[in-house]
Amino acid sequence: MRLSRYFLPVLKEVPADVQIVSHQLMLRAGMIRQEAAGIYAWLPLGLRVLKKVEQIVREEMDRAGAVELLMPTLQLADLWRESGRYDDYGEEMLRITDRHKRDLLYGPTAEEVVTDIFRASVKSYKDLPLNLYNIQWKFRDERRPRFGVMRGREFLMKDAYSFDLDEAGARRAYNRMFVAYLNTFARMGLKAVPMKADTGPIGGDLSHEFIVLAETGESQVFCHRDLVEMGAPGPDVDFDGDLQPLVDERTALYAATEEMHDPAAFEAVPEADRLSARGIEVGHIFYFGEKYSRPMKAEVAGPDGQARPVHMGSYGVGVSRLLGAIIEASHDDGGIIWPDAVAPFDVAIINLKSGDAACDAACEKIYAGVKASGKSALYDDRDERAGAKFATMDLIGIPRQIVVGPKSIAEGNVEIKVRATGERSVASLDEALAGLTAA
Amino acid sequence: MRLSRYFLPVLKEVPADVQIVSHQLMLRAGMIRQEAAGIYAWLPLGLRVLKKVEQIVREEMDRAGAVELLMPTLQLADLWRESGRYDDYGEEMLRITDRHKRDLLYGPTAEEVVTDIFRASVKSYKDLPLNLYNIQWKFRDERRPRFGVMRGREFLMKDAYSFDLDEAGARRAYNRMFVAYLNTFARMGLKAVPMKADTGPIGGDLSHEFIVLAETGESQVFCHRDLVEMGAPGPDVDFDGDLQPLVDERTALYAATEEMHDPAAFEAVPEADRLSARGIEVGHIFYFGEKYSRPMKAEVAGPDGQARPVHMGSYGVGVSRLLGAIIEASHDDGGIIWPDAVAPFDVAIINLKSGDAACDAACEKIYAGVKASGKSALYDDRDERAGAKFATMDLIGIPRQIVVGPKSIAEGNVEIKVRATGERSVASLDEALAGLTAA
Repeated sequence: MRLSRYFLPVLKEVPADVQIVSHQLMLRAGMIRQEAAGIYAWLPLGLRVLKKVEQIVREEMDRAGAVELLMPTLQLADLWRESGRYDDYGEEMLRITDRHKRDLLYGPTAEEVVTDIFRASVKSYKDLPLNLYNIQWKFRDERRPRFGVMRGREFLMKDAYSFDLDEAGARRAYNRMFVAYLNTFARMGLKAVPMKADTGPIGGDLSHEFIVLAETGESQVFCHRDLVEMGAPGPDVDFDGDLQPLVDERTALYAATEEMHDPAAFEAVPEADRLSARGIEVGHIFYFGEKYSRPMKAEVAGPDGQARPVHMGSYGVGVSRLLGAIIEASHDDGGIIWPDAVAPFDVAIINLKSGDAACDAACEKIYAGVKASGKSALYDDRDERAGAKFATMDLIGIPRQIVVGPKSIAEGNVEIKVRATGERSVASLDEALAGLTAA
Repeated sequence: MRLSRYFLPVLKEVPADVQIVSHQLMLRAGMIRQEAAGIYAWLPLGLRVLKKVEQIVREEMDRAGAVELLMPTLQLADLWRESGRYDDYGEEMLRITDRHKRDLLYGPTAEEVVTDIFRASVKSYKDLPLNLYNIQWKFRDERRPRFGVMRGREFLMKDAYSFDLDEAGARRAYNRMFVAYLNTFARMGLKAVPMKADTGPIGGDLSHEFIVLAETGESQVFCHRDLVEMGAPGPDVDFDGDLQPLVDERTALYAATEEMHDPAAFEAVPEADRLSARGIEVGHIFYFGEKYSRPMKAEVAGPDGQARPVHMGSYGVGVSRLLGAIIEASHDDGGIIWPDAVAPFDVAIINLKSGDAACDAACEKIYAGVKASGKSALYDDRDERAGAKFATMDLIGIPRQIVVGPKSIAEGNVEIKVRATGERSVASLDEALAGLTAA
């Protein structure tokens, strides 16, 4: 993409009431724009990252055997009356009346809708296990939306729902999501720790939050230090196999959110291993058994021919919120430092003298070469001061910058800067291009 | 994808009040499920096609130089008060009040939001031309939603907005979209004819609808027969060049929707060339000048330093509705016939005797081979009657079927069926695989 033809409205100043660094940087980098309290437009740069994050979430869901569908944003109130949640949900639910005076709502989650879809067509245990997920905009009418996309009202969520014949099957489904989440967050460069969590309004008796540690986290969390560096099992996990050992390894050590914190148990952790920190929730998984299937009569016939309510779980990832979490975990004074896997562009090309024939030709060659290799480049071809160009590229955090200036290009050289480390090197144009387009 | 692990709830019967064939087939093929009047869930098969259609629209927008962003589904009523449309829009607008009693609405279109985004950061003609688009769910509270996704209430729309310094620039922007639309629809196998159209509530003085001819079309249209087969210019168009000749070629011949129909002009077309038919609108483009930029003060400085309102146009494609239009144009008694470019899977594999070692091994080999080539396959590995398997694959319309049975595989052969023509052939397993994975 040529910057002269792009839409990248970077800001010099952000409103004084913007409190956390990810919110500031997303505004300054021209990634988002607030349209109403807690409601954001995703500007082109922000949308590119959002789609990368979304695609990683999708690929890891697919790998774990979940099947993607898409539920509508608006839902019938009657379904929520059936489950009993319509009156309980409170003011966070955005209730809507249409022209024919029917009660709708903007879905804050989709247990009811997916249970309705399930019961309409699945009748036998032979069609289980089943895990249906979608990545769709949700709305929760937070009383005090803040921190940008970290606590927005309209937000993008991946929500998966598992259906099994019995609790044992549901626990296997739960484990698949537990492991898929480890891989998902690791691919984005995040260290996310699964912690015992409260089940809240979803209900149920088994739940973990996946927490990224960050100073600006919304809540206090407590865990054994080893969990932070434990890493993820990676893509070769056999999701048809027994995942319990992988889960046990990560649940044997102490880890709990504030609501579930047990100070006595935490004291039992060796003092040097105790970690108490702020955390950002990026995922939340629940097993809740028959909570929805029983009132909504989502039943299947078992091997004995008897119909029984299915055992369900639900599994959320805050897709839009993840961008905030990634930035909180990866930035410096100059701006954002994107991990490669979610960077909006792979390569930044800075032309220090647009209009100079040698500089233009070198930049065009790099731009075409990067694109031909299947990678993406943002080419700053504008007639702007070098300082402003450097600052913008640092701010928006593209992993590798390649700088083309009249002096160095006269010697056939360009400068390469690695955004994360600030490391600079000089290479011939061809060497630089080979390095940028490799793997 | 193995069908045993997929979610494909095909229906034997559809409700009696389902009137048109695309709606019937989308329900029967397990592509969609109605959640409320005019509100649908996209089941896995439907979502796959929706994403293919969306991606074609996206690629052709990008090729024409438009830049993608994403605006939220909910918008502030105050922006619409600024443009003067809030009171005019009527009951089709879904109006919402949040917990703090602020007036929101579910966006039926986004001229106001995008104009607000534009005016906040673009101040000079040097940043023009600019075309911003998004592919986002919209809501129009139709009094009588019907015909499935063809006239839904919650629907997926691509809406693009162009910004130019003057009318001449805006006409060039209009032409780029005109040509991009020709290419977009052609890639989906559709013959879409641009027709002079009424500008309706968007306003403006230049507008074309892109119409797919179909017996079940919602409105009567009139055009010169040659336009139907005129085809699209294709991907090598230079969008920086002069597109006026391409546009003129297609606007010189008579073509108008019912609202704009001029019987006298139509009579001037040679009788054999006159075509009067039903049509489905799949795209609509508008030039409306300063209609929004003037009241909303979206101004840029020209070369003379004087600020002036920008000239705008907007350009819609009904992404979800396109699936209905494609099916209306491409089906037979057995079901849907997907054009290759939008097919949910490239290849269907039918195992006539699941559990038979030779059949299973052959199917697995084909399944792995198709996937390795970068194409997608739906493998019916279920223990089901052959007749039901054939009927399901015909119904869901995957372009190529490969049938593996115990008799033929004993001779090393499989049967290949082309869904569109019904043509069958026998080939060795390796030949068949080479044919399926080529190009």
